[in-house]
Amino acid sequence: MQTIRFKNMPKIVATGTIAGPKECAGVVGKYVDKTLSDDTFGESTYEKAECKMLSYAISQTIENAGKRETDVDLLVSGDLLNQIISASFAARDFETPFLGVYSACSTMTESMAVAAALVNAGYYKNVVAATGSHFASAERQYRYPLELGNTRPPQSQWTVTGAGGAFITSANEENRVKNTQKNAEKDAENAPAITFATFGRVVDFGITDVNNMGAAMAPAAAHTILTHLRETGRSVSDYDLILTGDLGALGSRILKDLTWEKGVDIQPNHVDCGEIVYNVLEDEFQGGSGAGCSAVVFNAYIYQKLQKREINRVLFAATGALLSTVSSAQGESIPCICHAISIENV
Amino acid sequence: MQTIRFKNMPKIVATGTIAGPKECAGVVGKYVDKTLSDDTFGESTYEKAECKMLSYAISQTIENAGKRETDVDLLVSGDLLNQIISASFAARDFETPFLGVYSACSTMTESMAVAAALVNAGYYKNVVAATGSHFASAERQYRYPLELGNTRPPQSQWTVTGAGGAFITSANEENRVKNTQKNAEKDAENAPAITFATFGRVVDFGITDVNNMGAAMAPAAAHTILTHLRETGRSVSDYDLILTGDLGALGSRILKDLTWEKGVDIQPNHVDCGEIVYNVLEDEFQGGSGAGCSAVVFNAYIYQKLQKREINRVLFAATGALLSTVSSAQGESIPCICHAISIENV
Repeated sequence: MQTIRFKNMPKIVATGTIAGPKECAGVVGKYVDKTLSDDTFGESTYEKAECKMLSYAISQTIENAGKRETDVDLLVSGDLLNQIISASFAARDFETPFLGVYSACSTMTESMAVAAALVNAGYYKNVVAATGSHFASAERQYRYPLELGNTRPPQSQWTVTGAGGAFITSANEENRVKNTQKNAEKDAENAPAITFATFGRVVDFGITDVNNMGAAMAPAAAHTILTHLRETGRSVSDYDLILTGDLGALGSRILKDLTWEKGVDIQPNHVDCGEIVYNVLEDEFQGGSGAGCSAVVFNAYIYQKLQKREINRVLFAATGALLSTVSSAQGESIPCICHAISIENV
Repeated sequence: MQTIRFKNMPKIVATGTIAGPKECAGVVGKYVDKTLSDDTFGESTYEKAECKMLSYAISQTIENAGKRETDVDLLVSGDLLNQIISASFAARDFETPFLGVYSACSTMTESMAVAAALVNAGYYKNVVAATGSHFASAERQYRYPLELGNTRPPQSQWTVTGAGGAFITSANEENRVKNTQKNAEKDAENAPAITFATFGRVVDFGITDVNNMGAAMAPAAAHTILTHLRETGRSVSDYDLILTGDLGALGSRILKDLTWEKGVDIQPNHVDCGEIVYNVLEDEFQGGSGAGCSAVVFNAYIYQKLQKREINRVLFAATGALLSTVSSAQGESIPCICHAISIENV
């Protein structure tokens, strides 16, 4: 069994989010805690800006949960930069133990799954899971510095500048949490719970085009979603939403084909964060990507829909492409992974 | 509380290790499963050799536990290369879910702690934790390619070429495991157990010299070890061994000073994997380092001492320096972390 069940239903009592101007012109604009007026966030480098965004998202998550930094037992985080420096340097700002994780753009669901597992087992009461990404630092590290002015192929995606965090807690009698987030209408007891986690396998379909992440990641998403449904005995219609992370338009189409081939039609309930994060403009091509994509879309937009009970059951399946510039230069294909969690109003 | 206790005592029923010729000339030589005759391991690049070593260590761990790949519920792994490609590409070789973690050279204890937490909670029966490193790939990525022939300063350490894994299991009646490892004398029920994990905080003492990792990491080790002792109510003499990962000679001396200042004398029971891994030669200066250092020393040498009950209680506290070449180039100091686990014959 790849899927584990959380009997004690750890709650997501609050989230905290921040995003760049381009992102906030889209669907998440009115849901994030902070919109950046420019993507340097007052820092001298894009890497420092990325780290500061992540640090902000963590702080805001704690504040929105009505808690203080000292109430947090553990921070679980990771990011796209080499040696996950955004997460490590952000963790330096907090007096809390830190567990570094990495699964590229599925880091949001990986960190939430690990956090939920540790809270559900009773090891810790309050755990914050967070991640983020930055368009300019990702371009520089994975592709070309912006100053080069390279053109982008039509199958490419646009790394989201943004960060998001989730406050995951046991939310029982001894650990009262009152959400102070704007638009929040519910107490912690009524907050959405994480009920299942399905850790994914590495799936490699032999894609070598580093500009075509959606196609590379779709088979991993299909594998984890189908495994989750089989192991939990659930069907697509049991979910109001099957939310993938950053497959983009092309990857989403491939995912629908792959699952349909196996007799599962996810089409009616499927939404991809990357596909909806931007207003449809020319230069993002297939949509958004990056660890910050699902971090912002879930923790801002989707979380508030769960809180208002406009939707009640989400399968959140973020995907990650586990390549590096070195592996690609050495002729390797792109291994991918998808970690999924089930989030429900119970 | 940073420390969590594992009531159900997950067992380390087997380990698997591989190391390079230079490493095997030292203390671990007669304990590893495989000694490489040259450090390319038959591959065309050092990165591919590193990945193959890690894959070998995982396979050997499973074989030594008398199990098959399909018996493994989860692989927890990470490494030093950008985007942890050694772990991700090694995971591609196995039909098992994969949880990527990163904390630089403390990845061995982080992955073992996470594995123990998931097994202890009953989510999974059999989890493999593994990591490794390679001298040449680390030099190329973090410092200079070997071909440049740069000289090394006297405070520098030598990244270990090697990998190690641990098979962590619930080892109860329904899940019988028989260790088939050479020199193994005990059944799974008598195997060493992981009893506590102390996840560390990020500690930054402002060190900026990337050739002086020992000094940068020692404060993190002191913080986690002192926290562990305080929270468990244990003293240094309760442990037969306090085993740090890769502080090296200089870092170990700083650790002893820092803990002594706080009224705790770890000197009598302290050993550092980096300090003992090599025969004393000139070019390693302060000793070994890298995620593979503690992975090989613990899983080969120390584990077999635990199995033979020559020692019975070890506090294993590996340390990691959470820098990247980008953070250093941007003038940042080196944030560090130390994750500790207690391993006991119970």
